[in-house]
Amino acid sequence: MTAQIGVTGPAFEPRCAHYQERVRDSFARQGAMHTLGARLSAVMPGSVDITLGWASGLTQQHGFLHAGMVATALDSACGYAGFTLMSEDSAVLTIEFKINLLAPAQGERFRMEGRVIKPGRTITVCEGRAYALDASSEKLIATMGSTLMAVSGRDGLQG
Amino acid sequence: MTAQIGVTGPAFEPRCAHYQERVRDSFARQGAMHTLGARLSAVMPGSVDITLGWASGLTQQHGFLHAGMVATALDSACGYAGFTLMSEDSAVLTIEFKINLLAPAQGERFRMEGRVIKPGRTITVCEGRAYALDASSEKLIATMGSTLMAVSGRDGLQG
Amino acid sequence: MTAQIGVTGPAFEPRCAHYQERVRDSFARQGAMHTLGARLSAVMPGSVDITLGWASGLTQQHGFLHAGMVATALDSACGYAGFTLMSEDSAVLTIEFKINLLAPAQGERFRMEGRVIKPGRTITVCEGRAYALDASSEKLIATMGSTLMAVSGRDGLQG
Amino acid sequence: MTAQIGVTGPAFEPRCAHYQERVRDSFARQGAMHTLGARLSAVMPGSVDITLGWASGLTQQHGFLHAGMVATALDSACGYAGFTLMSEDSAVLTIEFKINLLAPAQGERFRMEGRVIKPGRTITVCEGRAYALDASSEKLIATMGSTLMAVSGRDGLQG
Repeated sequence: MTAQIGVTGPAFEPRCAHYQERVRDSFARQGAMHTLGARLSAVMPGSVDITLGWASGLTQQHGFLHAGMVATALDSACGYAGFTLMSEDSAVLTIEFKINLLAPAQGERFRMEGRVIKPGRTITVCEGRAYALDASSEKLIATMGSTLMAVSGRDGLQG
Repeated sequence: MTAQIGVTGPAFEPRCAHYQERVRDSFARQGAMHTLGARLSAVMPGSVDITLGWASGLTQQHGFLHAGMVATALDSACGYAGFTLMSEDSAVLTIEFKINLLAPAQGERFRMEGRVIKPGRTITVCEGRAYALDASSEKLIATMGSTLMAVSGRDGLQG
Repeated sequence: MTAQIGVTGPAFEPRCAHYQERVRDSFARQGAMHTLGARLSAVMPGSVDITLGWASGLTQQHGFLHAGMVATALDSACGYAGFTLMSEDSAVLTIEFKINLLAPAQGERFRMEGRVIKPGRTITVCEGRAYALDASSEKLIATMGSTLMAVSGRDGLQG
Repeated sequence: MTAQIGVTGPAFEPRCAHYQERVRDSFARQGAMHTLGARLSAVMPGSVDITLGWASGLTQQHGFLHAGMVATALDSACGYAGFTLMSEDSAVLTIEFKINLLAPAQGERFRMEGRVIKPGRTITVCEGRAYALDASSEKLIATMGSTLMAVSGRDGLQG
């Protein structure tokens, strides 16, 4: 029996040597990431972390981060985790995601982790975790499961 | 055999006479709705519509609305649809939601519809639809299924 | 504002003239459908209904239909709804589905409805509804959202 | 940055000393588990494994395990993982689950793992993994995220 949830990250091999640059370029074009004050804190093959701070413009009615804003950062983390493994001529689109909110998104800062569970030529499946961070602790506040599609040569989509 | 998906809205009975006011007050406290430039365009028992315009601060890398921003508006539409049917001492929290992105969120304006499928004392299940609107047409771009919890007397949460 | 959830079924055009036969042949090869005692009660473009009776071999611990068995019939209903619109050389695979259980699956008989929301060359999105039926009434007990993939020429998969 | 998906299982404390017996009794009452030929291969606090063999009565049209049958075993694994942590007067119901099918469910035997991610008095969130097992290897074929509700004193529900 396995004592833990999840899989230790398999050693994914990127198909595109400058995958980091591609992720950073695409991220910089997401207006939503600017609005969130989000930044890429880690970009590795099959794995992307995004961090952001609390801000009143991101809240729901109780002053916690809005579930949709948590989802926005998690979706980008998962999407770019998948994108690190896609070929140079591919753009990435989210087909669907599901998020479970485990605890109120209360905290000074937040880290959203996106991880590829199953890469594929067309379909890639990812999982995400969101943590609320304070000076001395971190707390799991949300989990995501998402499905991505690699599209190529469509409507001039890039990244 | 039923020719259509979905249920015609049953006639839900709100438990709180001033449910509209409660929804509007809570909505006004969501910083995220200000950021989205969203407004409540309809509030009925078990049914809430939210509309918003395209803005560059809400986009993903191709200039479409970010899936997470579509989810943010849909989550509020579903959450407030559920909230219209909750008792006066209840606050509403989202337990989970899933969103399917059917088409790029391209358009001038967007309407997100939240509908209660099954109300309950503790658990309420909703469905949402997002439409992209142009001068002459509207297009279904996303569907959501969400689960809400009514909480009362917890940590001074309101609305 | 739209008074109802859902979309009235658009008039889908099947790509394969004998789509009904293809669905019925494939359904007959599903061992799981035999185990459920399930039968196809309607097959239309983008729309499939499956009916089955209560049986003790399908239950969870309280004697209701197991959520997974409800999901099994709904997944087949959705999958075949999508399959009615696929080209002749395509096989259908489920990428993911989500189910919300709205009420205990108690009843003499059950009808599961699968409907295509958005057909596509590669990806098709469906929604499902499960109803418990008694002599005089029917009750919505579950909703499903699912994503299908059309695969062709892979490993000799058919149907 | 965390190198792996998932959390190492926290040391959960069961509220009921004979939690194993309660799980085994309830499992034995699930007609669906008999139909699947499933057995409980591990029951620990917050963690349950179920194993089963391939059988033609569980298949979809290509001879793989039907996605719904994979979901049935995963839902029981997750549900009982949650049930190990519930109080003696609680019964467990599934509110919703989502499953991603990562690879065809091809194999001689299958192991479904259910793990509690976040226990709660009313709501418990779990994750599941399904593996296909052959003589020398195992392969991740599906992931599940599920939400459970503990209900007490309702309609004489037990287990």
